[in-house]
Amino acid sequence: MKMSQMYIPTLKETPADAEVISHQLMLRAGLMRKLSSGIYTYLPLGYRVIRKFEDIVREELNKAGAQELLLPALQPAELWEESGRFQNYGPELMRLKDRHGRDFCLGPTHEEVITDLVRDEVRSYKELPLNLYQIQSKYRDEIRPRFGVLRGREFIMKDAYSFDIDEDGLQESYQKMYDAYCNIYSRCGLEYRPVEADTGAIGGSDSHEFMVLADAGEDIVVYCEDCNYAANLELAKSKSDTIEIDEELKELEVIDTPAITTIEELVAELDIPAEKMIKAVLYQGKDEIILALVRGDYQVNDIKLGNLLDIVNLELINDDAYEGLDTVKGFTGPVNLGDVRIIADELVMEVVNGVAGANQTDKHHINVNPQRDFKVAEVADIREVKEGEKCIHCDGHLSLTPGIEVGQVFKLGTKYSEPLGATFLDENGKSKPMVMGCYGIGITRTVAAAIEQNYDEDGIVWPKALAPFLVEILVLGKNNEVSEKAEQIYNQLTSEGIDVLLDDRKERAGVKFNDADLIGCPIRITIGGRSLKEGALEVKLRKTGEELKVEIDQYLSQIKELIAKLD
Amino acid sequence: MKMSQMYIPTLKETPADAEVISHQLMLRAGLMRKLSSGIYTYLPLGYRVIRKFEDIVREELNKAGAQELLLPALQPAELWEESGRFQNYGPELMRLKDRHGRDFCLGPTHEEVITDLVRDEVRSYKELPLNLYQIQSKYRDEIRPRFGVLRGREFIMKDAYSFDIDEDGLQESYQKMYDAYCNIYSRCGLEYRPVEADTGAIGGSDSHEFMVLADAGEDIVVYCEDCNYAANLELAKSKSDTIEIDEELKELEVIDTPAITTIEELVAELDIPAEKMIKAVLYQGKDEIILALVRGDYQVNDIKLGNLLDIVNLELINDDAYEGLDTVKGFTGPVNLGDVRIIADELVMEVVNGVAGANQTDKHHINVNPQRDFKVAEVADIREVKEGEKCIHCDGHLSLTPGIEVGQVFKLGTKYSEPLGATFLDENGKSKPMVMGCYGIGITRTVAAAIEQNYDEDGIVWPKALAPFLVEILVLGKNNEVSEKAEQIYNQLTSEGIDVLLDDRKERAGVKFNDADLIGCPIRITIGGRSLKEGALEVKLRKTGEELKVEIDQYLSQIKELIAKLD
Repeated sequence: MKMSQMYIPTLKETPADAEVISHQLMLRAGLMRKLSSGIYTYLPLGYRVIRKFEDIVREELNKAGAQELLLPALQPAELWEESGRFQNYGPELMRLKDRHGRDFCLGPTHEEVITDLVRDEVRSYKELPLNLYQIQSKYRDEIRPRFGVLRGREFIMKDAYSFDIDEDGLQESYQKMYDAYCNIYSRCGLEYRPVEADTGAIGGSDSHEFMVLADAGEDIVVYCEDCNYAANLELAKSKSDTIEIDEELKELEVIDTPAITTIEELVAELDIPAEKMIKAVLYQGKDEIILALVRGDYQVNDIKLGNLLDIVNLELINDDAYEGLDTVKGFTGPVNLGDVRIIADELVMEVVNGVAGANQTDKHHINVNPQRDFKVAEVADIREVKEGEKCIHCDGHLSLTPGIEVGQVFKLGTKYSEPLGATFLDENGKSKPMVMGCYGIGITRTVAAAIEQNYDEDGIVWPKALAPFLVEILVLGKNNEVSEKAEQIYNQLTSEGIDVLLDDRKERAGVKFNDADLIGCPIRITIGGRSLKEGALEVKLRKTGEELKVEIDQYLSQIKELIAKLD
Repeated sequence: MKMSQMYIPTLKETPADAEVISHQLMLRAGLMRKLSSGIYTYLPLGYRVIRKFEDIVREELNKAGAQELLLPALQPAELWEESGRFQNYGPELMRLKDRHGRDFCLGPTHEEVITDLVRDEVRSYKELPLNLYQIQSKYRDEIRPRFGVLRGREFIMKDAYSFDIDEDGLQESYQKMYDAYCNIYSRCGLEYRPVEADTGAIGGSDSHEFMVLADAGEDIVVYCEDCNYAANLELAKSKSDTIEIDEELKELEVIDTPAITTIEELVAELDIPAEKMIKAVLYQGKDEIILALVRGDYQVNDIKLGNLLDIVNLELINDDAYEGLDTVKGFTGPVNLGDVRIIADELVMEVVNGVAGANQTDKHHINVNPQRDFKVAEVADIREVKEGEKCIHCDGHLSLTPGIEVGQVFKLGTKYSEPLGATFLDENGKSKPMVMGCYGIGITRTVAAAIEQNYDEDGIVWPKALAPFLVEILVLGKNNEVSEKAEQIYNQLTSEGIDVLLDDRKERAGVKFNDADLIGCPIRITIGGRSLKEGALEVKLRKTGEELKVEIDQYLSQIKELIAKLD
């Protein structure tokens, strides 16, 4: 493409409301523009990248035996009522009525629609397994859209759904998709990790997220430095180092701790290590209040606790709720709290003569001992893993690093097929619900994540597979001979099937150099009066900054060689 | 693809609610399924066809210098308020509120969004012309969705928008798109006609529709048998054969015509030709009632009359409105009607001693003479063209044929750029509104129209360019040798880049033959035990029904030859 004819409105300044790098660079490099909060237009350059990624996704999914179709974005509410999600999904689901007053929603995901499709068509085990996917705009009314397309309200997703006759079949379908995802992200040249993950609002049993490692990530990837173990912090487990404490149980006492409400303050004040503190947090359970306890050096992991309680979005109790309890905010502890169900992390049970809030303003208990001083209803792993803890699978240690979730695979089992009645007849003529999996890739999210992982102070540094163009040719000066030569090289490379952007604009050299760095094509060729005189092109690699002179006479083979070496 | 692994749920029976052939066949051949009224899922086979068509559209538009982007489907209401269309568009516009109560609509078209995009970015004449397009799902809440995807509520469109500095530029952009459209429909092997068309709710001055000729068409194409003139019946003009009537004006009389309310009855009763009748129709104007007059052998053309009155959806008056008028329904005429504005078709003015309703029950006037007996406020061409009338450009005669509108191009001028302030600085630094065009192609509609034009009693007869597969191989019997040979041929053809569907299902021959005809791939190869014995494949062309034997040893060159000859 010739830049003079292409719509690439680059920006010199960083737009004020763009917080993260990918958001800034997608605006500055002319990849997209905002229409409304969390809603973006993908400009020609950005849409080229998106379509390149979509094609990689298509190729790998087709290879894995999945078939592309297109489901409607407008979904009738009745289907969501059958699955029970129309109310449960909450305000993120965009709802509307048609002219006849019938309820619809805009699909944030398509489990209901696809299950409805196959329940009417697939009748026999002979027609299974089946794996259907689509690439489509999805809608989620995020309460606070931000970070550009990383958390938008209209975004492009690939979603796939598998249907099997049993759990073994599901495992096979799941593994195929897992492998396809690895191929997809590897082909894109991204540093990523598949991690064990929570299933959230989609539901089901097992799940893995695919995380692109990048500082802007809102998720935390926990991984073992020695083995393959990796999990989202939401779910990650560590081996508990059991500490045998050889200490006699002392008598429970109340002490004054004026205005001390944090563990840090308590540690400083009492000179007792955080490992001896018992942190107590009140949560709103289904129809009861829950007191969660972790050791003072840990945080409660809401997701683990929520899964234990079977609550998707577990929340703290309201301030109002304190009034009905025998406690005060900031000084809550497990002793004499009355009729509140206590769930304690396993490490809490090992605390001897610990410290906890005394449920009175400015007072703590010391010499608190679990089971002697308070009864625990349930002991479980409800703590958040910390950097350096031991792996549950080996003797390695755990590291934490931020990641951006770009894909997720789920074993749904019969969560949707049962309520919606998607059944088949097995070999013995018996009716059974299909066993489902579902598999998402954030298309626009992956593009943003790729930028988060591949940029420098001058702009984007595209990996080869996602680059809108592999080569950008810069024409310097107004010399006709130069323009002709540039055009000739452009035509020759293009005819070789190489994607080339020719910057033939009537702009100053500085503008062109800056835009080339900003847009970030892997190879830059500069041609000017000097090039012609010397018979050599200046070639620069965007990633390494390496500059080389290439003789005009034999540039083609050398450019091809450089392209082959790109990653 | 192998049919055993592909999801192609064909149906033997025609679904009850499918009225037109394309709707029936798209369901029966497993191309799509209905999710809700006017909302369809495109199954793998159907989506293959859609994507093939999309790629043809992309190639031709890119060649014409247009650039692909993707605009959001969710559009903020404020933009539509700026253009004045948020209220005007009526109930076809699907509206919703986000979680913060802000108004949005689902894009039925994107003039506002694209104009908003460029008004913020394009500042100079140097950046024009610009032509941007997208392929995307669109939403129109049709009051009565029907005919499958021909009149749906969620459907795929290609919409393009051009921006020029002046009318000459627009004319050039318009012509490029017009030519691209011709290339697109020609490449698809469709019989089509570009026709002059009304601009409707989109607005603007000139417009052409691209009509695929087919019996199921809801539009009527009027075309001259001798010259290039073609127009939608909504707009078509004919040359009026002026008839000099040498007759003395007779005295106006009222006659009894009990229970006679139609022109046909009147002609039969009075033995006076329809050419002497004056048909009178009452319409609701902007703030007045309009009486439209045409000769008895014509119909009023609502669109022509609406354009004259600058009303997009002109409607008849309500029955209630008759009460305020000096007339009765069924006997309305122009004489003594009181203070009603009369607009007469030009041919009415030539009527001498005509017949018209007398504004009393069961009575008509005879010897009615325009201007003597009633005053006409305006004379214009407001009649609907009839088969056989003379062309306005030559001496040829007009024919009428049904057509399906699959594309439309509009000269918008400054209809959107002016209210939305999309201006640029011209060479003299003067601010001017951009001059716009817009260009739509119904992607799913074209696929349906292609079927309406290409089918027989057994199923679809795909034109080459749109066929989901060029070749279908039918494997007959359970002989392993046959299966292996079929697979070998399948692999070889596929490796030659030919799209092949292999029917390797464990089904009876009859089922496979019927499905092959239904799905309608251009070339069918049958391979069974006899083929192997005789060393020949049975090849059948779907369109002509021609059958030929092809020696297995040299089938490849012969199949390629057949493919080359397809249209």
